[in-house]
Amino acid sequence: MLAPVLKEIDQTTDPAIERLRQYLTIPSISGSPAHVAEVARAAHFTADALKACGLTARVEKTSGHPLVVAQTTPDIVANPGAPRVLFYGHYDVQPPEPLELWASPPFVPTLRDGAIYARGASDDKGQVHAFLEAVGAWMKVHGKLPGPLTILIEGEEEVGSAGLTGYLKAHAKELAADIVLISDTHLWAPGIPAIIYGLRGLVYFDVQLYHAQSDTHSGMYGGSYANPLTLLTQVLGQLFDEEHHITIPGFYEDVAELSGQELARWQELGFDEDAFLAQIGVHEPFGENGFDTLSRRWARPAGDLNGIWGGYQGPGSKTIIPTMAGAKVSFRIAPNQKAQRIARQFEHWLKSFDVHGCAWKVTSYTACDPVLLPVDSPWIAKAAVAIEHTCGRKPVLARDGATIPVVSSFKSLLGLDSLLVGFGLSDDNLHAPNEKFGLSNYTLARRTQAALLQELAR
Amino acid sequence: MLAPVLKEIDQTTDPAIERLRQYLTIPSISGSPAHVAEVARAAHFTADALKACGLTARVEKTSGHPLVVAQTTPDIVANPGAPRVLFYGHYDVQPPEPLELWASPPFVPTLRDGAIYARGASDDKGQVHAFLEAVGAWMKVHGKLPGPLTILIEGEEEVGSAGLTGYLKAHAKELAADIVLISDTHLWAPGIPAIIYGLRGLVYFDVQLYHAQSDTHSGMYGGSYANPLTLLTQVLGQLFDEEHHITIPGFYEDVAELSGQELARWQELGFDEDAFLAQIGVHEPFGENGFDTLSRRWARPAGDLNGIWGGYQGPGSKTIIPTMAGAKVSFRIAPNQKAQRIARQFEHWLKSFDVHGCAWKVTSYTACDPVLLPVDSPWIAKAAVAIEHTCGRKPVLARDGATIPVVSSFKSLLGLDSLLVGFGLSDDNLHAPNEKFGLSNYTLARRTQAALLQELAR
Repeated sequence: MLAPVLKEIDQTTDPAIERLRQYLTIPSISGSPAHVAEVARAAHFTADALKACGLTARVEKTSGHPLVVAQTTPDIVANPGAPRVLFYGHYDVQPPEPLELWASPPFVPTLRDGAIYARGASDDKGQVHAFLEAVGAWMKVHGKLPGPLTILIEGEEEVGSAGLTGYLKAHAKELAADIVLISDTHLWAPGIPAIIYGLRGLVYFDVQLYHAQSDTHSGMYGGSYANPLTLLTQVLGQLFDEEHHITIPGFYEDVAELSGQELARWQELGFDEDAFLAQIGVHEPFGENGFDTLSRRWARPAGDLNGIWGGYQGPGSKTIIPTMAGAKVSFRIAPNQKAQRIARQFEHWLKSFDVHGCAWKVTSYTACDPVLLPVDSPWIAKAAVAIEHTCGRKPVLARDGATIPVVSSFKSLLGLDSLLVGFGLSDDNLHAPNEKFGLSNYTLARRTQAALLQELAR
Repeated sequence: MLAPVLKEIDQTTDPAIERLRQYLTIPSISGSPAHVAEVARAAHFTADALKACGLTARVEKTSGHPLVVAQTTPDIVANPGAPRVLFYGHYDVQPPEPLELWASPPFVPTLRDGAIYARGASDDKGQVHAFLEAVGAWMKVHGKLPGPLTILIEGEEEVGSAGLTGYLKAHAKELAADIVLISDTHLWAPGIPAIIYGLRGLVYFDVQLYHAQSDTHSGMYGGSYANPLTLLTQVLGQLFDEEHHITIPGFYEDVAELSGQELARWQELGFDEDAFLAQIGVHEPFGENGFDTLSRRWARPAGDLNGIWGGYQGPGSKTIIPTMAGAKVSFRIAPNQKAQRIARQFEHWLKSFDVHGCAWKVTSYTACDPVLLPVDSPWIAKAAVAIEHTCGRKPVLARDGATIPVVSSFKSLLGLDSLLVGFGLSDDNLHAPNEKFGLSNYTLARRTQAALLQELAR
């Protein structure tokens, strides 16, 4: 069944690129209040593209920007008893600024050096579009898809997916499926596909400490009362011990142990720690004692101060005791840790310190669970078959240290695991000027998505 | 000799206030490049006032704003063999902003409620002017002053006194004297005069820690390399132990022990710790364990973080590892500590930490020694006689926790101790809108300065 679909895809590359080009002309900047109508236009473009494939698609209202939903009816499914795949993507994009750094305008898609340059080319319109093209090819060649399919393309991924979360809660039953397929990540390296099977969670806090009604003179008051900045630094300075372990009681209790098998498999990935760090100008790895860099990034929690402020920040000197100090503190939590539990533990730990009359103001911004799909999951096996078929090699099974909140939402709200199979490259300039998507990767994506539609329906 | 001088002062209050009013109309804002000519005008006004008294005065160029110097010649000194007093003050003022909070314009001196309101009324033009009036009264009544006198009025006190420091170095011999008299502080309380005999020094640093060439994604890199913000917080968080002692090795070595006698005298001052802290909205004293608040402010060093910055400071969350973090760190050092030694100790302590590949950028802004005039100094005894004569009660002998850099400069560059006798009040709104100087305090200052001229010449 797949061979003629791949042939169709190979023969329609030029018109596919033209359709992608049109998609990328729409400035669907979800974070810009001035672009609300353009975001809606991209939703309708997405729905129309699905309808052109022969699917029934609708644009659904949410608390924010609309999302696009399509579900196959039994008449267009070859095997209606096959597992149902829920494909997720997003049609919204990051703001393009600074505009002066773009070689061609961000919403005038331009082909050069074998790639298409535009905001959203890789993140995520280009990858969504490749999937739609694969669906279209199946429908054109066979009039049917291999298995039941639900498609969910949202318009708020770049601004927190609030509307999607509400929609998932309200429509959990209708969205019942067997596996989520997401194409919003990248290849392991050029020509080397990857399946991401693990992500860290995120717990993020804003903590502020206050004392005195205003800044005071450090000569007159130094030594009289607790300086909130000194105290905040003292407290947060105790977040790590000498081995760079996080000192919050119970913090590591739930962390999933890393198996020797998994570690051995990672050894074979050829991860070059020195090159990875040299890219950002760093020459000394550092983290939790007793683990290598890949384990620290993928399988171990990490704590970071992401920001701090208080008192005088200008040139020269100003002799004040500031009235407050604040910090952003976050934890990337490892598989099996529970975000809500870590958040409670951190807040309890923070407030266990005597701050000598200062007052805390603590805000929790995010508490997102980590996710981990067992490496021996049959879904991974099926996806690997599809990928090997179109890429000519087995995919790398990798984790990622970052957090993709929608993956946690699919797990917690729909009970679904996610397969992360992406086709971008790490130098595609996501969220930066001159975003691009290699045309060969676009075609690899269309072909591999066609194969995934077949294999995941087995 | 003094009685007719005081009588002259009492009979000429109105014309004296009129002369002060004229002085206060000049916006001699040393920190404002737009006011250079006005600052120079105030210098000439000051010199002219001295000349009107019968002294030879000159306006001297410095690296910045000019300073005014006058020295008595033997012909106008009753006892040329008496000790030479060097009177120091400043004619420059703080910027008046925010203007909308002034009840009357800052450079339109206005009499109301028994005070004169204007920028500089108390800090320091009003106090300088009271001294000039006392000199004028002596000259008018006797044609001579009781002893040799040098007058030094600078125009850069509010911006760091760089020009004065250079001038003192270059003219140390010509400025030889026996004691410095400074009138730039305030009464202990309304009607209760004070002599400040001790000040803390100041050591101020800007410390910055850098790593990686830019901010990085905390998901991708968290756990891979040292976060400079986390590290800076860890290092500065160790500046104090659990007793709030500073942990820098050797830090306390030189601190002068506080005698039981001095402590007993402080007990009699009626210092109300609760009221002192309640003024700024603080209800819990805190500082170095084992000392009371007055000792911590006056006789013990204090360390403070005056500012901190790094990474994301806005609303919500941003998941970055910042490329740098910085802090302002300062120490109020106690009598007998050496600023340069403390600065070296701090920098050595800071750099003794392993920062795992991060790089320090450390800038020392100030290293100013503390000063302490022995309480049994004959100068204090002489000043106390003068003060008791005009105020009707003995002065309070107090220290201050703040730093007056010129006092350290007079000690280190000219070898001179300073007597600090001031006539402002703590609610005179120094450096704030609606600065004022009570007319009764202005007269008390003129009378007491006249008496000090006599007593210090004995």
